Amino acid sequence: AGDAAAGETKIGACAACHGTDGKATGPIYPNLAGQNAPYLESALKAYREGQRGGGMSAIMAPQAAALSDQDIADIAAYFSSLTP
Amino acid sequence: AGDAAAGETKIGACAACHGTDGKATGPIYPNLAGQNAPYLESALKAYREGQRGGGMSAIMAPQAAALSDQDIADIAAYFSSLTP
Repeated sequence: AGDAAAGETKIGACAACHGTDGKATGPIYPNLAGQNAPYLESALKAYREGQRGGGMSAIMAPQAAALSDQDIADIAAYFSSLTP
Repeated sequence: AGDAAAGETKIGACAACHGTDGKATGPIYPNLAGQNAPYLESALKAYREGQRGGGMSAIMAPQAAALSDQDIADIAAYFSSLTP
């Protein structure tokens, strides 16, 4: 399972667009605060596997490629734990 | 621009997984309430153009394929207008 505290230490790059509080820094990026962790894991894995194109995938795919399954679970747990 | 009132009349299929209130009916689906409308439009168009695979794309792609740009803008405006 994901560890939100560990996730908080892994979101440095994510925060540039999604905010440390999970509130997107621009309207073309999704807010992640309070999002469902299983969905976030599914989305990150789809980017990592190169299954998600379009939108901001050119940014997301290389970001996700660097993440392990545990990293993804921790990051998802962190953003999911935030208040929308 | 999107019309949230018109969007409310177009989310019948969406609500099965995303809820009429934008709160997902299952953890593998994303909550959409209060999500950024430009992001929602971008995601729906990526599904419609077949650019998004993985995750629940097998369900989302045919749903999005039936939507016009105005439908997408209205649906995005509706979900974005909801309180997370």
